[in-house]
Formats: sequence, C-alpha cells, structure tokens
Amino acid sequence: MINGELRTAAPIRWAMVGGGRGSQIGYIHRSAALRDRAFALVAGAFDLDPERGRAFGVDLGLDPARCYPDYAALFAGEAARPDGIQAVSIATPNNTHFAIAKAALEHGIHVVCEKPLCFTVAEAEELVALSAARHKIVGVTYGYAGHQLIEQARAMVEAGELGAIRIVNLQFAHGFHSDAVEETNPATRWRVTPAFAGPSYVLGDVGTHPLYMSEVILPHMRIKRLLCARQSFVKSRAPLEDNAVTLMEYDNGAFGTVWSSAVNAGSMHGQKVRIVGSRASLEWWDERPNQLSFEVQGEPARIIERGMPYLHPAAQADDRIGAGHPEGLFEAWANLYARFAIAMEATNTGDAERLSSIRYPDVHAGVEGVRWVEACVRSADAGGVWIDYTCG
Amino acid sequence: MINGELRTAAPIRWAMVGGGRGSQIGYIHRSAALRDRAFALVAGAFDLDPERGRAFGVDLGLDPARCYPDYAALFAGEAARPDGIQAVSIATPNNTHFAIAKAALEHGIHVVCEKPLCFTVAEAEELVALSAARHKIVGVTYGYAGHQLIEQARAMVEAGELGAIRIVNLQFAHGFHSDAVEETNPATRWRVTPAFAGPSYVLGDVGTHPLYMSEVILPHMRIKRLLCARQSFVKSRAPLEDNAVTLMEYDNGAFGTVWSSAVNAGSMHGQKVRIVGSRASLEWWDERPNQLSFEVQGEPARIIERGMPYLHPAAQADDRIGAGHPEGLFEAWANLYARFAIAMEATNTGDAERLSSIRYPDVHAGVEGVRWVEACVRSADAGGVWIDYTCG
Amino acid sequence: MINGELRTAAPIRWAMVGGGRGSQIGYIHRSAALRDRAFALVAGAFDLDPERGRAFGVDLGLDPARCYPDYAALFAGEAARPDGIQAVSIATPNNTHFAIAKAALEHGIHVVCEKPLCFTVAEAEELVALSAARHKIVGVTYGYAGHQLIEQARAMVEAGELGAIRIVNLQFAHGFHSDAVEETNPATRWRVTPAFAGPSYVLGDVGTHPLYMSEVILPHMRIKRLLCARQSFVKSRAPLEDNAVTLMEYDNGAFGTVWSSAVNAGSMHGQKVRIVGSRASLEWWDERPNQLSFEVQGEPARIIERGMPYLHPAAQADDRIGAGHPEGLFEAWANLYARFAIAMEATNTGDAERLSSIRYPDVHAGVEGVRWVEACVRSADAGGVWIDYTCG
Amino acid sequence: MINGELRTAAPIRWAMVGGGRGSQIGYIHRSAALRDRAFALVAGAFDLDPERGRAFGVDLGLDPARCYPDYAALFAGEAARPDGIQAVSIATPNNTHFAIAKAALEHGIHVVCEKPLCFTVAEAEELVALSAARHKIVGVTYGYAGHQLIEQARAMVEAGELGAIRIVNLQFAHGFHSDAVEETNPATRWRVTPAFAGPSYVLGDVGTHPLYMSEVILPHMRIKRLLCARQSFVKSRAPLEDNAVTLMEYDNGAFGTVWSSAVNAGSMHGQKVRIVGSRASLEWWDERPNQLSFEVQGEPARIIERGMPYLHPAAQADDRIGAGHPEGLFEAWANLYARFAIAMEATNTGDAERLSSIRYPDVHAGVEGVRWVEACVRSADAGGVWIDYTCG
Repeated sequence: MINGELRTAAPIRWAMVGGGRGSQIGYIHRSAALRDRAFALVAGAFDLDPERGRAFGVDLGLDPARCYPDYAALFAGEAARPDGIQAVSIATPNNTHFAIAKAALEHGIHVVCEKPLCFTVAEAEELVALSAARHKIVGVTYGYAGHQLIEQARAMVEAGELGAIRIVNLQFAHGFHSDAVEETNPATRWRVTPAFAGPSYVLGDVGTHPLYMSEVILPHMRIKRLLCARQSFVKSRAPLEDNAVTLMEYDNGAFGTVWSSAVNAGSMHGQKVRIVGSRASLEWWDERPNQLSFEVQGEPARIIERGMPYLHPAAQADDRIGAGHPEGLFEAWANLYARFAIAMEATNTGDAERLSSIRYPDVHAGVEGVRWVEACVRSADAGGVWIDYTCG
Repeated sequence: MINGELRTAAPIRWAMVGGGRGSQIGYIHRSAALRDRAFALVAGAFDLDPERGRAFGVDLGLDPARCYPDYAALFAGEAARPDGIQAVSIATPNNTHFAIAKAALEHGIHVVCEKPLCFTVAEAEELVALSAARHKIVGVTYGYAGHQLIEQARAMVEAGELGAIRIVNLQFAHGFHSDAVEETNPATRWRVTPAFAGPSYVLGDVGTHPLYMSEVILPHMRIKRLLCARQSFVKSRAPLEDNAVTLMEYDNGAFGTVWSSAVNAGSMHGQKVRIVGSRASLEWWDERPNQLSFEVQGEPARIIERGMPYLHPAAQADDRIGAGHPEGLFEAWANLYARFAIAMEATNTGDAERLSSIRYPDVHAGVEGVRWVEACVRSADAGGVWIDYTCG
Repeated sequence: MINGELRTAAPIRWAMVGGGRGSQIGYIHRSAALRDRAFALVAGAFDLDPERGRAFGVDLGLDPARCYPDYAALFAGEAARPDGIQAVSIATPNNTHFAIAKAALEHGIHVVCEKPLCFTVAEAEELVALSAARHKIVGVTYGYAGHQLIEQARAMVEAGELGAIRIVNLQFAHGFHSDAVEETNPATRWRVTPAFAGPSYVLGDVGTHPLYMSEVILPHMRIKRLLCARQSFVKSRAPLEDNAVTLMEYDNGAFGTVWSSAVNAGSMHGQKVRIVGSRASLEWWDERPNQLSFEVQGEPARIIERGMPYLHPAAQADDRIGAGHPEGLFEAWANLYARFAIAMEATNTGDAERLSSIRYPDVHAGVEGVRWVEACVRSADAGGVWIDYTCG
Repeated sequence: MINGELRTAAPIRWAMVGGGRGSQIGYIHRSAALRDRAFALVAGAFDLDPERGRAFGVDLGLDPARCYPDYAALFAGEAARPDGIQAVSIATPNNTHFAIAKAALEHGIHVVCEKPLCFTVAEAEELVALSAARHKIVGVTYGYAGHQLIEQARAMVEAGELGAIRIVNLQFAHGFHSDAVEETNPATRWRVTPAFAGPSYVLGDVGTHPLYMSEVILPHMRIKRLLCARQSFVKSRAPLEDNAVTLMEYDNGAFGTVWSSAVNAGSMHGQKVRIVGSRASLEWWDERPNQLSFEVQGEPARIIERGMPYLHPAAQADDRIGAGHPEGLFEAWANLYARFAIAMEATNTGDAERLSSIRYPDVHAGVEGVRWVEACVRSADAGGVWIDYTCG
C-alpha cells in the first residue's frame, strides 16, 4: 500500500518540454510525477512562447533561470549545472517527439514521452539503440495501463484462470470529435494534421492505448498478421482517419479486433478491453476502472473490485486508499511515473534485479505502438488487406 | 396498447412442424402464436417419432387425428379438410427448412420459418417466387426484432435524430458453447454439423439476428462489400465456425461490424446493436430490452424506456403493460406473430394497404440472411477477403 | 421447464369481474391465466357499463350470453349452468374486492383477487373462514413474486448462504404520480379516493408487493413492531399518502424498512428487495428481473442469472426459454396463475400433498397485507409511533 | 480548470497530528494537501511512538527536528519558529479531536479536523467561539463533498430544476465490518470502543458524510425533528451501533431517511444521495462519482458526466482532466484542501469577499454533524422516538 514514503533514494530532478498553460495533458504529467515526491520539478521549456512559458514555470514554483525558451536550451543549460535534470517528460505535438527524445538521450537524460514515440519504426529503432548506448530509459505514457486491475488481469491470465486465450476485443472509441471541432480547438487541430500528427489520427491517438494493455495482460501472445479499414467521417481530416477497425490474428490462434474512434457520438471514452478464454472472460472499462468483470462460463459473473484483499499481490501493491473508494486516472499515471522513477534509479545504479521487477511501458512498448500504427495504415491504404506482422 | 382483443376477423388455423417436447424453441413459437388468439393450434407434426409427437399434440389439446407423423402427411391431411390449416410454423433443423417451406407454399399454406430460410440464395429465390405465385406469405422468426424499442430506433433514425449514419456496430456473442457441449447436447449437435446446419454455424445462428435488426432500423442503407474472418475454436466444429467477425461497407459510406460468437465465455447473450450517426448514437441490448440508450454528442446520455408516452407511436403500438414493468422475449415474438397473422389475413383478402402498414421479417428478409451468410462464408474461406455484395 | 403441456387435468373454467377495455391490469390477468391453457375464459362481467362489457367479452371470444352486467348476475347465471365457472378473478377498484370475493366463495367459486383483499383485518378474517368452510382457495395477485429468482433467493436463504438475516430493505417507489395525474386519469383517481381505495394509497398499492416478496424469501421471520411515517406531497390526496416509510423490527432481531412511493420523480419502478445477512446479501430489482446480485462479504459480487443450470431446482422449474433471453412480468404472472390452477385442482380433489407442494400468495398472504397496511396507517396517524404487530 | 498553478500567494506551512505509517487516512490527507502545492508539509507528530513518528516524518522529507513526539510539543516548538506552521490537520482517534483542535486554535493555528469534530455540541460550540476569537478556520474533512458533481447538484436544485424538494434519501452502508474484524484490526477497534469513538459508531463514522452532502445541496432546508433506530448486529459492539436508520422531517415539509451501516454485507460503499423534487430527481453514488443521474418525471433519465461543458460553472471549476477520464476520491479531497488553503489565506488577510466565495465544510458543518449524531443517539436510546431538532 502506497502511503507517500519515498521509494527511491531521492526525488529525481525533472523537467518538462511542453505541457504549458493551455495543454490538455501537462497537468496530469506533473500531477503524476510529483505525487509522493517521485520526481521534483526543477526546470522546463513549457511553451513555444518563451515569456508565457517562463511565467507558467514561475507559477509552478520554478527558478526563472531554469525556465528555458526551448528544449535545446533546456538540455544545454541543465547539462551545465551540477544539479541539472536527470529526466525529462515530452508533452509536445507528435512531430517533435523523436527529435526531443533523441536530444535528451544524447544529453544523458532519461526520457518520458507521450505516445507515439515517433513516426516510423526506423526512428523508433534509433531511439532503442540510443537508449541502450546511453543507459537511459525511455518511458511511454500509456497511462491507463497504470490502473491496478490491469495487473490483476495479467495475473489471472498467467494463472490460467481464463483457459486458453481465444479472443481479444479492444476498443477506444469516444465521440468528442464527431464534428470538426479542430476548426476552433487547437489541441485537436494538430492531431488531424499529418505534418504534426504523423501517419494516423485515432489509431495512434487512442487505439494504441488498449493495444498496450493487451500486451501487458497477454505477454505470451504475438500478432501474426493484421488488417485495417479506416475512415475519415469528417472529410477534411482525410487522409487521417477518425475511425478505424483492425483485425488481428495471433500466433496462438487467437483472434483480435481493435475499434479506434473519435466519432463514436455520445460515447464518453469507450475504452474497453475484453479477453476471452476457453474457460472464462475478463472485461475492463476505463470509465469504471475500479471494477473488473470476471465471467466464468456456466457460473455467475463476478465483479472484482480494486483494493480488495482477494486480489493478486501485484494488483494490491499500488493501492492507496482501500476498496470502495474510487481511484481514477491520476492514480494510474502516478503508478506509472513511480515505476519510471524506480527504473531510472535502478538503471543509474546498474541494479538489474530491481529493474526487472518493475513493469512499465518502455522503449520497446513505444516501438510496438509505432509498428502497429504503421502496419494498420499500410493495410488500410492498400484497401484493407492482410499484412504480415513481425514484432520487434 | 394491446389488450387481448382480436386484431383479425378470426384466429388463423395453424400447425407446427417440429417444436416437440424437447425442442428449445417450440414453446416460444406456440406461446407467441397463441397469444391473444392470433392463431389457433389445430394440427401438428411435432416429432420425428410419430408416437411421441402425437402424445405431445394431445397434451397441447389437439385432436389426435390431426397429429401427423410428418410434414407431408400434415399438409396432405389438412388439405383434405374444410377446416384445414391456413398456416404452418417450421421449427426443425436447418437442412429441412427449404423442403418443408416449399411444400407448404405448394399446398397454399402460409409459412412461418425459423432462420435460416434455406442454405443457398438460389433456394431462397425459389421460395420468393413460390410465395408470390401462391399469394402466401413467408415470415421468418427474427424474434428479437419484435421488441418495441427497435421501432423507436427506426423512427428516430428516420426523423434524423442521429444525423447521417456512420457506424453500425452489431454483435450477438454468447458463451454457451465455449466447450464442445454438442458431445452431450443434441440441440447443439445438429447446429455444428454441416449436413444439418448448412454452410455456417454462428453467422447464421446468431449473427443474422442483429443484422436483421439493422435492416429494420436502417432501411435506406445497403451493404456494398464485406469481409469475414471465421474461427473454429472448438476444433471439431471445423469447417463450421464458432466465432466470426464481419466488416461491412455501406453505400452511404458507413462502416459496419458484426461479431457472431458462441464462445464468448461467460457472456449471456451479448446481442447488441449500436448505431452511430454524425449527431448521436443509439444502443440497444437484448438482455435489457426495455431500455434504449440515446447519446447525443455533447449532451447527457438519455435512457429511453419502453412504454413511455414520449415514444414514437410505432413504438407504443405493441405495449401491453405500461412502462416500468419489464416485457421480455415472449412479447417480442408475440408482436411478430400478431403481424404475421395480420399479413396473412391481408394477403388473403388482397388488402394491399393494410399489408403495407405491417412491418415483419418477410421472405425478402429471409433471402437477405441467406445471402449474407453465403457471402461471409465465401470471404472467410478465401482467407478473409473483400467480397462485393449485392442486395436483392 | 415449461413447454405448454397441461399441468392440470383440464383448463379451469374461469371468468373475470372488471378488467375491461380501459383497465390497466385486465390484460395481464387474462394473459397470465390463459397461458398454456391453465384457465379457459368462458364468462365475465367486465365493465360497469353492461353494453361495453358485453362487446368487450365478445371481442375476447366469449358467448354473449355469458357476458354479464355485474358480478351478482355472473355468479347466479353461471351457477345455473352445468359448465359454469370454477374460478373468478377480481380486477375492480379496491372497495369492491371484499363483497365480490365473499359472494364468489359463497357460490363455491375459487377466487383470484387483486390486492388489497379488503379494507380491514376483520373482513380479511371473514374471507379466511369462508375459504376454509367452502373449500375454495383465494389467491392474491402479488404478481412480482412469480419471478423465478425470488424462488432462488428463498432457497439461498434457507440454505444459510446469507448467514443470519439482519436487514430487510424493501422499496417500491415509482414517480408516475408526482403530479396530480388523477385530475385527468381515472385509473389513478379511484386509487387516491378513500371511498374506493381504502385507508391508504401507496402502502397498499405498491408497498405490499415487496413486503410479500420478503415473506416468501424469509418465511421464518415475523414482524414484532413497526412504525410508519406517511406524507401527501400532492396535497389533494390527503389523508391518503403518496409516500411512506415504514420501519420494522423482527422477532429474530433483524431490522427492516419499506419505502412506498408514487412521487419518486423520474423513477420507473424502483421495486427493490435487499436482504442482508451476517455473511452475504441478496438484491433483486423488478426492472431487471433476470438478475439477482449475490454479495458475499470479502468476495467479488456475483450476478446470478435466470435460467442457468446452477440455480436451485425451484428456481428452474418455471423456466420457459433458457438463460440469456429476458423473461418479464407476464411470465411472473403466468407462473402464479399456473400455481393457482394447480391449487384449485388439488383443493377440488383433496390432494393435500400436491397442495402443500405449491407456493402461492394465498388468503393468508392477503390477510397479512391488509394487517400491515392497517398497522402502518395507525402508526402514521398517531404521529409516527411504534405499534406492536402480531401476525396471523 | 485546475492545472497546478498556485491559487494562494504561497503554500501554507502545514503539519499533521496522527496519520502515521499504519494510518488508513493519513495518506489521503497528505496527498490532498500537497496537491498543486496548496500546503507544504514542514512538521508533524505522526505517531504515539515518537521514534516511529520521527522515522516516518523523515521518510516524508521532513527535518527531523520538526518531527515532534506529540501535539503539545508540536504546537509549542513551531510557535517558537519564525517559519512555524500555519495550519495543522488532525487525523487521530475521535476522542482526541477536541483537545488537539482547541490547543491548535489557542496557538493561532488553522485546523483541519477529521469528523467528528468532538463528542458533544457543547464542545463544538466552544470550538466555534475559539475559531471566531482567534480568527482561525476549522475545516472538517467531509471529503466526498469535494466531488465536482455535488456542486452540479447544488446548482441544479438552486435553479429549480427539481421543483420543490420532497424526499431526501441518504445512505452510507458498507459491509466491511459484517464480522467482528476489530478483534484483529486496530483501525476498526477504536471505532467501536466508546472511550475512543464517542457516543456512536456508524452514525458518526459514515452517516454524517451523506448528511453533509445533503446540507451542501439543500442549503435552504432545515431538519425539524428526527427519529433514529440503531442496532448492534455484532453484539460486542453494543452500545455502539453498526447499523442505524434515521428519519427526518424538514421545515419545508420534505421527508428524509439516512441509512448508516458497516454490516451491509458485500456492499462496497453504498454511499448514495437521492434528492427527489416535484419535477425531477437527482441521484449520486460515491463509487461512480463521475456520473449524476437526472431523472425528470416523464422524460428519459439523463446521465450527467463530470467534466462536460454543459455543467454549471461551479461544477467545472475543479476539473483537472476533462470528461471521460475518471477522477476519484483523491481529487475530491484535493478540491477541499485547496478551498481550506484559500479560506485560511483569506482569513489571514481579512478578505471577506474571497472567503465568502469559497464553500467548504467549516466549523459550523462540524457542529452540525455532532448535533445530528447526538440527537440520533438520544432518539435511539429512548426506543426510537421523535426528537425536536434545532439547527445552530
């Protein structure tokens, strides 16, 4: 049970690139990193407008001298300090992720990056190599995966409680962009503009989230081939899709589907993961993350609750408040950031055992997301054909 | 509001083929047909075992002389009587539907048939022609379509409350056959045996149900092409599938999916219809058939309830008890059977206006189901490829 | 499993008093009684207006000669026939129940009566005596109690699966009469008029329903004392209440509450029964009658489904369609009417063993409801004080 | 929208009494206070065992010199420092709240206190007077009230969207203490021991939570009289109750009920607030705090979602992440603590306007909870009689 005591020797000195005053996601990065002093925010390049960025940093309690105009100045400036940053989080539009992450690693700084890590598998592999060469980690903020019941699902699958896995049913299908909100909302605008967003919109923006969760829950399964159909229901978004369906065949004979959408009108999130085995199914929904439905064929369905003593120890480890009280997305992110901190410290000290005890969305998870989007787009653009899929 | 008063001049004289003592579905046919005296059960060929069939018929109150050993004897015997049957319901294994329906029509008897109507489109077209030639209807028991809120959904789509339709998300995915229950359960055995079941298992057995509902709700849309992947997770069922996913492109640019399954472990029915438009979505679930979720983007989701005065008149017409009280599948079937009776009478009297006022799953709906299964199987057996699809 | 075969030697010859064309409840009585030929409708006095009543009866298929102007003529006329009625259902305003039931019993006719059976315990006891003297049953249409999962709840309590019973939490709190709908709706008007409704509105009209269910589920428990507070939120209804809360102490130390309401705005039915034991709780809701929540402290809650093989045999006996398919209120009523028919036949033949095997809301249940309402009103009218309560 | 920027001139220097390593609630106090730097933890007396308390404080990043053995030393030591604490949170067993709060106020320190504030109304009034005399606030951690949709409910009631309020239906009825867990669990043990817990268990421990929410939502209504029945189902807890039902009459004619329980077996929290008006009802449940059900009689029920633009501004002010993402109890507490900080600063600067713009559970809310428990116990111990109730 988490009670606020430090889990590393000291808070990790940390900065952000992006995530300024108008950012949708800057706050959750900070809220997660600063929880229980896993990280200490000491510097930043929060905004394209240096003045605004500095003012924001000061409001967050930073020394104005450590509020930089851009990431290059940030990395250079901090490198020159004995107490310079040890880690940076990247919360900028997609097209900048690769360059910033690369520069950070080259400066010997651990990276936490928004998905997608980059636009191509080639770029992603470059970051893998750099991460290994510099002995610095790259964490990717698949934040939903920090929900405790995902660990419970993983443990139950591993224990065979579902039997052989047959069906993987994934969706993240919200409706917030049913209209062309990008005409007035800049936070949506860059997401539907290829130059900033990359080769896809919803596949990368939402679809990779449940995909990553399925990788956590089903570590033994590999996609063999996939097929994708994508649509641009708001026509001005073409070639980027606002809706997509992906079919997947796994190496163990299982079959998967992913529904990614931003035009599922009226749906709040609609992020659901259903894993069907020969004996039982598990279903999890991110809007009610404190419950996991466990459905054994021929028995009453069971509602598994976060925080209960009957859970697998891995699903209890990150409990903060006990059962009955709802935890939300902020705790899920804080769980991830705490693991990032531990992974950074363990990497710094060369503690391989501790490093292997921590599960987090690492650079390989980042690569996998890029690879999957790339393959989906290739399939869809060829008319919805099957594509052989090789994992890294 | 239905209160039990006759809606035709007199109950229609009616028989069943199949549906005997051990039948899963015989009872719901009778319960629906006899509700409010739409039909009067006067004859039958209930069982392969003539003695057992006769005993059963007598228990149902029939004259033993009108309990026949088989459908041929039934049609011949009744044709010889001045008070012979006017209609027959066919509740036998799939492989016999075509021959029995054909014989009935040839005897000038109206037909109500379990889906699938037959195995091939060619056969189906033959029944269409025969139905037209003999001026007798063929009704197909897509029983879920009789739920009142399906009419509400249709009326709301027609009124434009959803905007332009973009996504059609269908599923009927139960888990009752996660194991090879056919080894001990004869009612399942024939369903997974090609000679009795035809070219598919779950596509035809469950998938066509939500497909038909989508046809009712979205009469203006046509499938242009489709792609299907099917699996036999219980291997002994091959080549018949126990799980399948179908993708569909519509002529208006909408995209559809159908998940058909008998191995969705732990799921009771899982029959769901979600229609997504540019403005709003509708979602209906057959296990809670008295609610319809109406989700306008940007507004609170609304739970529409069966029986309420705010419903479209077409959705109130078949109300029997008022809101708050749950109606179930038996009322849905009874609604269909009542429409079958009216359609039979209107056909007999040549009342085209009344006939056109009644919506029911007719012979064309039967053809459509056969065509869709045929196309799905063709796509799946070619490795999951896109198939051009032409509606009747 | 019910499949439509006769469960008595022959359908019981049956009439209705009340329940005519505009009746809210006439149809469900007929639908339930005629299901599977438990009863045969052969006569009636459906309406205060004899002509309208006759026309309605003819529409239902009756011989016009057996459509009577009132109950007195009905009982006299039928007594004169060799094929006269054996049973009658009373679906008239409350103030007439006692006189009609008494007259029926005096004519040697079995009675099915809407609740409340009468207005006072003294009247109720008179019917008990008459029922015993004439060897005729009185059934009371606590229709919700026919839902199959009520039997499951009873069996689970009996088996000790809940431990010692501590809390009984009952409610039937709808919102349909939040406004003074009686100004335009005659079916509500008599319910809020003391001369027709008796000493209470919602306590008797809705509260006795979950009360009876608690008696079925908890046959070993007796109320020792109770306290009631009642309100007339629509002031013109005073002294009749449209909202009431009753507290109850049981002989085993358990504590109960009943919330009866017609002004719970926006609630559809809100009929819920929650039984809390030292080990586990059960909760059932009439709007989703196919599910029963079983909540063992310290374990995941379980959703028990109607129709599943894991149910107690008593909860499977009345299954008509299998699990996954929703059954509704009509099946619940049909289950009760089938038991009424069996009880009538067993009474006629003196088959005590068969009679004791059938559980139905009998004359004693009717008395109990009257007694409870009487005590609640007495408590409320004294300012909400505790009243000693002695069961019959 | 909250994005982490400071809302006061500087973080408030803050200490805790209690809330050490094994505490159930210490972590949520710290997590809430430290969120977005509303407070800075600089001192503490965390534990009865001074060594353990100091070690814990050091783990939290404190100067060991400011980890005190008890509250007296804390207040004295900090008073001697120019940078001494400005506020303290009290998270100790109930019997110590009064003395610690009094001492803090006497030292000129703002107080945040766990409920109940104290044991008697007389004590509570003493704290009111002291708070006024010293110009220091007392905040009470009715943490659930910080959920954003409670503000939405308040705004909707104020706007008349429910019509005249008729029924107030409150419950907090969990099942975690169905067994005598206090035999092994010290955190439960003191709660059921009168010397530590005061005159009640569940009335004060859980019942006052929804009661306070009802005060927030319905500020215009006053309880006129109440009646309470309480039980000790685990007998060793007597005279303290583990289950209680309270009836309440309000000055506007509304009727209320509160179900407080720790033996509602299998229920997780069961904290629900339902407000029924003449036009519509609102229902909120703490386990799904991101949804509010709004049920207008005669219209489809609406599911109001946290974070949506259609909400009242007061319900949007504390949004941190947008709709669709679940927020949980930690955000609710953080919202309260942020208001405590603003109230402290506004009190310090004499900014009456700002102070009046902030709604938080203040010393009067604390008094009210004590008064209500006192009245409930008095009613229950007199056999469940009506007690006149006068608010402060």
